[in-house]
Amino acid sequence: MYNREVKLSGHIIDSLTLPKALDMIMDLGGDFKILEFKVGKLKGDISHAKLLVEASNENLLGEILDELSEIGAVIVELKDVELLESKKDKTLPADFYSTTHHPTEIHYNDKWIVVEDIEMDCMIVVDQESDRAFCKPIGQIKKGDLIVVGREGIKVIPPERPRGKLGVFEFMSSEASSEKPIKSIINKIASEIKEVKDRGGKIAVVSGPAVVHTGSAPILANMIKDGFVDIIFAGNALATHDIESALYGTSLGMCVKTGEAVRRGHKHHIYAINEINKAGSIKEAVESGVLKKGIMYECIKNDVPFVLAGSIRDDGPLPDVITDVIDAQEEMRKYVQDVDMVIMISTMLHSIATGNILPSHVKSICVDINPATVTKLSDRGSAQVVGIVTDVGTFLPMLYNELKS
Amino acid sequence: MYNREVKLSGHIIDSLTLPKALDMIMDLGGDFKILEFKVGKLKGDISHAKLLVEASNENLLGEILDELSEIGAVIVELKDVELLESKKDKTLPADFYSTTHHPTEIHYNDKWIVVEDIEMDCMIVVDQESDRAFCKPIGQIKKGDLIVVGREGIKVIPPERPRGKLGVFEFMSSEASSEKPIKSIINKIASEIKEVKDRGGKIAVVSGPAVVHTGSAPILANMIKDGFVDIIFAGNALATHDIESALYGTSLGMCVKTGEAVRRGHKHHIYAINEINKAGSIKEAVESGVLKKGIMYECIKNDVPFVLAGSIRDDGPLPDVITDVIDAQEEMRKYVQDVDMVIMISTMLHSIATGNILPSHVKSICVDINPATVTKLSDRGSAQVVGIVTDVGTFLPMLYNELKS
Amino acid sequence: MYNREVKLSGHIIDSLTLPKALDMIMDLGGDFKILEFKVGKLKGDISHAKLLVEASNENLLGEILDELSEIGAVIVELKDVELLESKKDKTLPADFYSTTHHPTEIHYNDKWIVVEDIEMDCMIVVDQESDRAFCKPIGQIKKGDLIVVGREGIKVIPPERPRGKLGVFEFMSSEASSEKPIKSIINKIASEIKEVKDRGGKIAVVSGPAVVHTGSAPILANMIKDGFVDIIFAGNALATHDIESALYGTSLGMCVKTGEAVRRGHKHHIYAINEINKAGSIKEAVESGVLKKGIMYECIKNDVPFVLAGSIRDDGPLPDVITDVIDAQEEMRKYVQDVDMVIMISTMLHSIATGNILPSHVKSICVDINPATVTKLSDRGSAQVVGIVTDVGTFLPMLYNELKS
Amino acid sequence: MYNREVKLSGHIIDSLTLPKALDMIMDLGGDFKILEFKVGKLKGDISHAKLLVEASNENLLGEILDELSEIGAVIVELKDVELLESKKDKTLPADFYSTTHHPTEIHYNDKWIVVEDIEMDCMIVVDQESDRAFCKPIGQIKKGDLIVVGREGIKVIPPERPRGKLGVFEFMSSEASSEKPIKSIINKIASEIKEVKDRGGKIAVVSGPAVVHTGSAPILANMIKDGFVDIIFAGNALATHDIESALYGTSLGMCVKTGEAVRRGHKHHIYAINEINKAGSIKEAVESGVLKKGIMYECIKNDVPFVLAGSIRDDGPLPDVITDVIDAQEEMRKYVQDVDMVIMISTMLHSIATGNILPSHVKSICVDINPATVTKLSDRGSAQVVGIVTDVGTFLPMLYNELKS
Repeated sequence: MYNREVKLSGHIIDSLTLPKALDMIMDLGGDFKILEFKVGKLKGDISHAKLLVEASNENLLGEILDELSEIGAVIVELKDVELLESKKDKTLPADFYSTTHHPTEIHYNDKWIVVEDIEMDCMIVVDQESDRAFCKPIGQIKKGDLIVVGREGIKVIPPERPRGKLGVFEFMSSEASSEKPIKSIINKIASEIKEVKDRGGKIAVVSGPAVVHTGSAPILANMIKDGFVDIIFAGNALATHDIESALYGTSLGMCVKTGEAVRRGHKHHIYAINEINKAGSIKEAVESGVLKKGIMYECIKNDVPFVLAGSIRDDGPLPDVITDVIDAQEEMRKYVQDVDMVIMISTMLHSIATGNILPSHVKSICVDINPATVTKLSDRGSAQVVGIVTDVGTFLPMLYNELKS
Repeated sequence: MYNREVKLSGHIIDSLTLPKALDMIMDLGGDFKILEFKVGKLKGDISHAKLLVEASNENLLGEILDELSEIGAVIVELKDVELLESKKDKTLPADFYSTTHHPTEIHYNDKWIVVEDIEMDCMIVVDQESDRAFCKPIGQIKKGDLIVVGREGIKVIPPERPRGKLGVFEFMSSEASSEKPIKSIINKIASEIKEVKDRGGKIAVVSGPAVVHTGSAPILANMIKDGFVDIIFAGNALATHDIESALYGTSLGMCVKTGEAVRRGHKHHIYAINEINKAGSIKEAVESGVLKKGIMYECIKNDVPFVLAGSIRDDGPLPDVITDVIDAQEEMRKYVQDVDMVIMISTMLHSIATGNILPSHVKSICVDINPATVTKLSDRGSAQVVGIVTDVGTFLPMLYNELKS
Repeated sequence: MYNREVKLSGHIIDSLTLPKALDMIMDLGGDFKILEFKVGKLKGDISHAKLLVEASNENLLGEILDELSEIGAVIVELKDVELLESKKDKTLPADFYSTTHHPTEIHYNDKWIVVEDIEMDCMIVVDQESDRAFCKPIGQIKKGDLIVVGREGIKVIPPERPRGKLGVFEFMSSEASSEKPIKSIINKIASEIKEVKDRGGKIAVVSGPAVVHTGSAPILANMIKDGFVDIIFAGNALATHDIESALYGTSLGMCVKTGEAVRRGHKHHIYAINEINKAGSIKEAVESGVLKKGIMYECIKNDVPFVLAGSIRDDGPLPDVITDVIDAQEEMRKYVQDVDMVIMISTMLHSIATGNILPSHVKSICVDINPATVTKLSDRGSAQVVGIVTDVGTFLPMLYNELKS
Repeated sequence: MYNREVKLSGHIIDSLTLPKALDMIMDLGGDFKILEFKVGKLKGDISHAKLLVEASNENLLGEILDELSEIGAVIVELKDVELLESKKDKTLPADFYSTTHHPTEIHYNDKWIVVEDIEMDCMIVVDQESDRAFCKPIGQIKKGDLIVVGREGIKVIPPERPRGKLGVFEFMSSEASSEKPIKSIINKIASEIKEVKDRGGKIAVVSGPAVVHTGSAPILANMIKDGFVDIIFAGNALATHDIESALYGTSLGMCVKTGEAVRRGHKHHIYAINEINKAGSIKEAVESGVLKKGIMYECIKNDVPFVLAGSIRDDGPLPDVITDVIDAQEEMRKYVQDVDMVIMISTMLHSIATGNILPSHVKSICVDINPATVTKLSDRGSAQVVGIVTDVGTFLPMLYNELKS
């Protein structure tokens, strides 16, 4: 029998880590002995367990340890991570380690070092000169990069569910339902936002054009002006319709005030793009006095950065749109590691894109009238996202009211 | 060739009645000559057309005239309606006339008489003694009833779309979309409600339990107290969860204030039913001081009648619930002909039930977060219903704000 | 300190029973010592734990034990259940025990007796003469009934998730998603159905009218003929449109073959009701040769019973419909305890109604194109239902193909 | 009074062109006289009308004529189009003409010339040397381009609805509903596909990754092999998961055969990208024998071109993906004008992108389980798209069966 000692510690009962571990071991055909087991009795106390994991061959033992490492189990007798070189740009050695979006450390040169810029489905690249480890997507791997392979010396720290309820993120499960008391949910989100801002935290807003179509662009503009938003991730549609709305009072040709279709209104979004093209950029349009209000205007005025990522369905697009999606991803990555909270509004595309590069510790809220959007986000691995099934057109005004009260 | 002269008048251009008529005639294999055609030039002006409808045989001519009558065409040379006796309770003679939900008159004893209590998919029964005509569902037909058959002497007056936009019902098409400026839609509905109440009109609310689950029961209670609601159509679930919420602060065991699940809370709706069963009825529970707030409480206190219709999924049910669905339909019919506006909230079952017995002139709004509810309502024939895809938990507070401003 | 020993046994690790128990105790403010803990090592082995539960007062201890009993914990030192009389029809003593839908036993006269006809949200009534215990809904409680109160002497046996995957019910979580390999899911359901029938089990089908609208009525009719269906739960709409389809080839006036609207077709469902009213009942219509095919026809021909429950939106209804919903529930209860598997198709109303009275051991599948239906079913407590988000119009033909192969 | 004669001809009664024209004139505050009116009596006959449009000022008259031109009205007394130069790349002169997606001609140098590459929301650029007119999106406008402005000399030929039903596109309205006989709809689509292929037409498939997730990739692969598909528009996700499925039998880590999650399976799509990166491209992977089946394999083997457009949420992406979305649009434009039919499957993003550049005469089908996708497509202007709400996992196998029968 091949065996290895592993340790689990933290809220391993409440977070179901221990039973999951035992379950995994046996599902995979291994066996275990519980060597130590100490349960924390009080809320906040942590528990410890030491297990002897056994398997009939080394390969199986490795596979079991691999699985266990993803839920935070650490091999007691430590070895350094194993590294292999990439032989060609954008390619990986066999048995490369694929990251989770949880904080991760590797044991290298006999000490634990934090993997920087962690995000899911990426690789860990070690820089031998600086003794630092970086998370890199496959598209950024260069020939010669030293890539972590196998399973030794990797420690993942998944989020835990400590006892006692703390806020909106603990109180709401990720199950999206429209049959919940929305007023109290909005109050909790508002408290959370204020709390993040009070401690100097950063909030990202990811938004689709429905914010403009439903008449809520002035609300989001106010939130930016009032300092609740630190970065905007969106696409050409949000910016174009926001500018259309600021210049002509319509969104997709429909009057934002009355909801009525405006004659020739379907040309307005092209007019809007034309005006920004004439000015040269959104910033120049604000500076020259062409653009005087709205979401994009407030971003410029309040130095709130935005990343407008191109999409295959774009009209125009605006000159500020990054039409190469990989460049746009890189631009988003510059902001995402510093963010404390993300509010995703009515956009499946940009929400999933953001979820893809977001570390698991960032509190995220996804607001959409379609429960499928939230479900899809969770299916893609962003399980930490709290889904709220509601109408963004009524949600934003009520949230802003609460923020200002 | 068999032929017959028919007249069309009203907004037959704007409402597309004339082209539909010509289209029908030719689709069915008939032919026509336009004998007269006068187009109203100004908004509000009506147009007239006289057509000679031709067909190769009498049967076909009849079928064409039958179709034309549904869109308001009237045969110039008048005959009385034809009547046949029912031979057995709940059965109909062949070729019975099935009603629309539009105002309908029949030519009987040489004069036009209005069909009373019009609703769709029913029969017209003539009372020879009183010279009156009534709309009756098949379940109420008695042996010996005189039932209108064939197509002569029937005039249907479908709603028209006059030029110029008038209010929420003209401005919104029945296409349900969540991407519309919801604030302005709510403003228009509020104006419409106030306008109906100012002229002494009556408003029915049809509601599902989501109103309680989303925390909006106090809002609807206030609307009742403030006189905006004249009749409530609902089921056991709305009343039970409203009472649960009034007595225990929960809805389906979830705290309505915080949205958190309450330990043992899933027993609360049975507790609520138990309390009302002990009191004898909702009214007695209010009078004895057991029930002190909420939707049902305000109904009792403000003499707003309610019809609670039983459903196969009911727990309990409350003693006030009419468990026989046909009796419940009859009870709803007592109110529906006098109603000027219906607001349907988050209930497909009761909304379709109400739509089934509603004359087409009653302005109806259906509010649901699921677009399928509205689509289904339209598919079932209630095309006059304006669908609003939004979250009832945010819609009602915003509507009430607007009503009180 | 008040304390009590409780035992947990079964797959308490895999089914997460033990961590849930520890979690509950501490969430409620109690404490525990683990007196014994024996983990089953092999797939299929069961585990045992004995805990000493402690609380600062008797009330709290009671509340904790109450919670623990719902997940299957049994108090080691046994007492008999406590009984109190109902003082009025349809009313309950304070602190009544509200049932789960899991198999339940009570300790009475020093022995464990099974609670018969278990379903959720009901009461346990003890018949002292026969020493039997019955599950009764509040509406059936009579003055003088002896009702179980408190928490002593009650044992709940929740379903467990043993190690290793067994079939469609284990392999599919209740998470409904349309992005799963539907062909293999259908294969598994077909195997499950065949397996149930091979061992003489009974299958209930709960169906909405979409089966007819989508053109799948002949498929369901074949399934009945071939003996795959033992009981049908449905409403007036399914039966009416099935008969409309059999008599006139339309469903809601739309040709079932071509999908085109048929002129005057919206009268067909009234025609269908008229024909059955003339005959007297569906059975008489089959016997007299009026009805010659379809779902209802095959039910009559193959002695498959059906319960048609009335709903407030019914046209007609057919003479076979039970218009009193409480009577209809009682009729459904006659069949539900003997059923081994339930297939719910495109009906939220009847699916929830069936889920309400179904013991948790009955394997249930809910097929609907709208993920909200499945979510709602789970929210209402029927968590054992496996949801399949697909189109019933394509699902049934593919399932039947598989059943016949 | 300013006035102008306009002509309408075609199926102006059946297609409601005439009443819409009269309605428009009066809504905008103009007036009209009907100078001639000749109604086609037989199916297929066309009708003619000549109207004198009147308005109180020239501006208003222009606006009315502008509107009328969009539904096909032609000014009797012809003038040439007016042209203005663009003063800067990507910018337009005021009052530029924004195209519809209907066939369009301009009157230039005294003759009607067809606008080439017509698509909606674009501009008409005239090349004076060749006397040709091109449709160009704003992003392609160059300084100095001669752009059509105003409304004179433009003729739009909107699609007409001739009497009599012809096929799936006439029989199905654009209303998406899941309650339709799906079998007969599939039969009609299959006939339509065969008919297009029989006359040498081209079919484009636009597909999301759900085709792979639901296990239908082999079906689509077969359709390509059998010659039913001439071009594929998709994204990185479809190609990656198709290749993942071909290489490892999983899609997003879930076994495509059994639907069960595979241990470590979430790494498989990165493995797949890695393999293609190693090979250099999909084509090289096929040639070197790495990729041996699936959708992309059959595209390579059968010389069916594909356009893989990048998106902000892409992992990798594959080397074949065009990461600049504007370049990807240009690539799609190369194929779209020659296509006779488009089948859009489970992708809102790529479906809207394709709809944006598609001429209105191309028959389009959009298959999605979410009715919102179809609604959104129509709202964005692609009203000619027929929506089918069904499960792609069952739709494709049934369609292929029909195609092969």
